Amino acid sequence: MTEDTPTEILDATHSALCDHGYAELTMQDIADQTDLCKASIHYHYDGKHDLLLAYLDHLYEQFEDRLSAPADEGRHADDPAARLRSLITSLLTERSDAPAFQTALLEIKAQSPYDEAFREQLRRFDEAFEARIREVIADGVADGTFSDDVDPDAVASFLTTHVNGIQTRHVGVGHPLEDAVHAVDEYLEATLDIDIDTTAGSIAPAASVEAGRQD
Amino acid sequence: MTEDTPTEILDATHSALCDHGYAELTMQDIADQTDLCKASIHYHYDGKHDLLLAYLDHLYEQFEDRLSAPADEGRHADDPAARLRSLITSLLTERSDAPAFQTALLEIKAQSPYDEAFREQLRRFDEAFEARIREVIADGVADGTFSDDVDPDAVASFLTTHVNGIQTRHVGVGHPLEDAVHAVDEYLEATLDIDIDTTAGSIAPAASVEAGRQD
Repeated sequence: MTEDTPTEILDATHSALCDHGYAELTMQDIADQTDLCKASIHYHYDGKHDLLLAYLDHLYEQFEDRLSAPADEGRHADDPAARLRSLITSLLTERSDAPAFQTALLEIKAQSPYDEAFREQLRRFDEAFEARIREVIADGVADGTFSDDVDPDAVASFLTTHVNGIQTRHVGVGHPLEDAVHAVDEYLEATLDIDIDTTAGSIAPAASVEAGRQD
Repeated sequence: MTEDTPTEILDATHSALCDHGYAELTMQDIADQTDLCKASIHYHYDGKHDLLLAYLDHLYEQFEDRLSAPADEGRHADDPAARLRSLITSLLTERSDAPAFQTALLEIKAQSPYDEAFREQLRRFDEAFEARIREVIADGVADGTFSDDVDPDAVASFLTTHVNGIQTRHVGVGHPLEDAVHAVDEYLEATLDIDIDTTAGSIAPAASVEAGRQD
């Protein structure tokens, strides 16, 4: 057992979630993604629920890092519109395993009404994303990039809701991410009274969410 | 066994889904909501998956009826803005069991990437809703209620995505439906260049999605 065991287990949880989904996930599936036996994983985590909460906590730390320092912050540091678009597109498309991951995340969201601990974790993601969007919009209003009429609270909440919709519609019926992001560009242009630089955060070729699970 | 047995079973499926969610649902849970034994239900449906598909089919018929004749069609027949708002709010709030039902529906959406039959059913709902929204917007552009600049295809797709987001965010983190509908009103007013009659489709007091399942 090394110092890195918890990280190895959390990485294995991510892979196992992408492969099996949340409902079907077992501790054995997670052990199968590591060199550890199931008992070693139980040594660190009481069970699937406990491990999933630790995984969401780990994910939240990564999410916070991404929100505070987008990959292209340097290139777009002075352009609130590009930062805003980059925040939205990176959430939708960053990971190569995004479709499977988005699907597992939707399963967890559907469990949240019955699981207060999951719900608290999901609220942290929701609030952090909305707060970051609000901050970037407020910056853009302050420096004159966006119209004075823009209400950062209202637009941040609307965008947070809309991004939930993009993820759900993509998972549920395969609505293309490219079309959804194009529609967000049009919304931002109209609402903030700007021209969007569509090179700030590009959308990868349609990632399919129809690929079967590995179980 | 009466002529109404299939309808009784489908109604029982709805109640059982709201009580137990999709993942936990068993044929026995459905039988418990009827005077029938589990074997009688198996006589009509091969299993849970087959029954769920029949249920989604039944739900789609009701959905189509609602889309083509909203409850307040008479009152708002000549007002495309009110019809549009009524379509959106009725989808979000019509049923008294809406929170539990929305949660079960989100579970089914999360299964859809692994289940082509579910996905086909969900696509019918998605397409029917988007088409109806598009039609009402096109009517409003044609009769001069909405601005000539409005693209019915683009706005209908954006609203369909957004309604997915309202449902998901409500289930996942308890974001209030009233706030979400208010934000849609502001979007419609800005995009269609209209004043919204907020009496067209009212939002009931916050329905909680935090109530525990009955299992």
